[in-house]
Amino acid sequence: MAPLDSAPTPPAPAPGSPLRFAKGHGARNDFVILQDPDGAADITPELVQRLTERTAGLGADGLIRVVRTRAAGVDAPADAPEWFMDYRNADGSIAEMCGNGVRVFAAELRRTGLVGADRFDIWTRAGVRTVEILSPPEAGDGTWQVRVGMGPGRLTGEARTVTVAGRELAATEVDMGNPHTVAFLPEDAALEDVDLTRRPALAPEPPHGTNVELVVARGERHVAMRVHERGVGETLACGTGACAVAVAAALRAGDESRRPWRVDLPGGTLTIGWTPEGDVTLAGPAQIVAEGTLLV
Amino acid sequence: MAPLDSAPTPPAPAPGSPLRFAKGHGARNDFVILQDPDGAADITPELVQRLTERTAGLGADGLIRVVRTRAAGVDAPADAPEWFMDYRNADGSIAEMCGNGVRVFAAELRRTGLVGADRFDIWTRAGVRTVEILSPPEAGDGTWQVRVGMGPGRLTGEARTVTVAGRELAATEVDMGNPHTVAFLPEDAALEDVDLTRRPALAPEPPHGTNVELVVARGERHVAMRVHERGVGETLACGTGACAVAVAAALRAGDESRRPWRVDLPGGTLTIGWTPEGDVTLAGPAQIVAEGTLLV
Repeated sequence: MAPLDSAPTPPAPAPGSPLRFAKGHGARNDFVILQDPDGAADITPELVQRLTERTAGLGADGLIRVVRTRAAGVDAPADAPEWFMDYRNADGSIAEMCGNGVRVFAAELRRTGLVGADRFDIWTRAGVRTVEILSPPEAGDGTWQVRVGMGPGRLTGEARTVTVAGRELAATEVDMGNPHTVAFLPEDAALEDVDLTRRPALAPEPPHGTNVELVVARGERHVAMRVHERGVGETLACGTGACAVAVAAALRAGDESRRPWRVDLPGGTLTIGWTPEGDVTLAGPAQIVAEGTLLV
Repeated sequence: MAPLDSAPTPPAPAPGSPLRFAKGHGARNDFVILQDPDGAADITPELVQRLTERTAGLGADGLIRVVRTRAAGVDAPADAPEWFMDYRNADGSIAEMCGNGVRVFAAELRRTGLVGADRFDIWTRAGVRTVEILSPPEAGDGTWQVRVGMGPGRLTGEARTVTVAGRELAATEVDMGNPHTVAFLPEDAALEDVDLTRRPALAPEPPHGTNVELVVARGERHVAMRVHERGVGETLACGTGACAVAVAAALRAGDESRRPWRVDLPGGTLTIGWTPEGDVTLAGPAQIVAEGTLLV
């Protein structure tokens, strides 16, 4: 992948020099991005907690380290892509993937010139992901549009019901690498009025939990959704959740065209499509708001 | 004030060039600080809202612009101090003063070399404030200790009761430029268990509202407090509230020594003292966490 190797690289920071960071978000799922190309930084859970803390730190839902795969200290094949998305949850724990985070990661690689191509592969703890820069930001906006391959969306065929406001709804189970339970609300229900402060009741209860998506139809290949993420609660946007919803919505509408679906989430709009091979793609905004150096 | 004028000044940014910022907090009351010495930036409420927004922006309780008084477009006497603390609430509205913000503002002036002295005056919408750098940060910590003159603390003598967990407590009314109602909890009460999701009931109800402080004694010239701020709700720290509490606590203890009191708040510890003239002083931490440029 010659275009990647020919991109200019900033000099490695001297040990103990200030860490460089950027702050960005994808559909209001926000990240502190640490620029550590040569793996010089020691990313402890304590550091992640300190930087993602919202009042005494920089504040974010998670932290992404930009680091060369071979310098990251992770298992990877010899021909793995050059750049590794080292993603951590705000509590310092490691996560495999994040559909909103991977768009921000790709935008940051392109913005800083670490990658010169508009389509490139990256390495993640869930394996290779192919990303594509659809459009750069307009002046002063900072928002890139990025598409990322999310792998197959598998209908498990499992039967499950979701109870919302006293109504028992038949759900569609979709496996996006993580489990999703997608339920369409009745025509007369208002999505914004549903109480998602706790997860809706499920039957049968899935043994390892699930992400629950509530959906309403908005038009042709267009839905709106809210999501209750497993282990987190309601969030403004969930990338794999939007993919699962589009898979379930296309099934429900009998749409085998593989033309893209628009999915509105509280944090923004995502577009879900399919590759010729049938893998699901997630496209949406990634805004880089600021860059700087850490002083602590 | 020759030492101030002799301090080096960074060149004025070209119109349209990126805004420089820092992020800092005082006792976990956090601020985006915009470095705009020559008043080139157009600080609209929309800009303040966008930058203080926690997921799509940088995130903070408020915004402080570092600007020369004569370039700030505010009413000020000809001999007003060189630097003006232009403080805005997160909603974009203008506020007169902020006891935690003024420490962060002073630390930032000193850190960036805009001021070279350890003791200097600043201009605020509430008039002149004298600040004193007590100690610079230790390596890698970023935390300055700063003392600021807060003006007189006036006991109004007004009678008011506060009802906490069904108990009616006699309060002390203190005017710090803004109104405070300070109540000491009984010896057997646990400060951390009080429900402050809404303001405790007051009798009589003050016509223009008040800040309510609940206090427990911790030792000699040492108290702990929680605060419900007028128009805001419970916060982790309130500078004028800590001053009011120390004034009421010294009165209650019959302490006329004017030696400093330690006040523990959920966000950190503040030290309240008195000048020889009887003005209240507020000392505490101001940590500058990061600096950089805005990209949007």
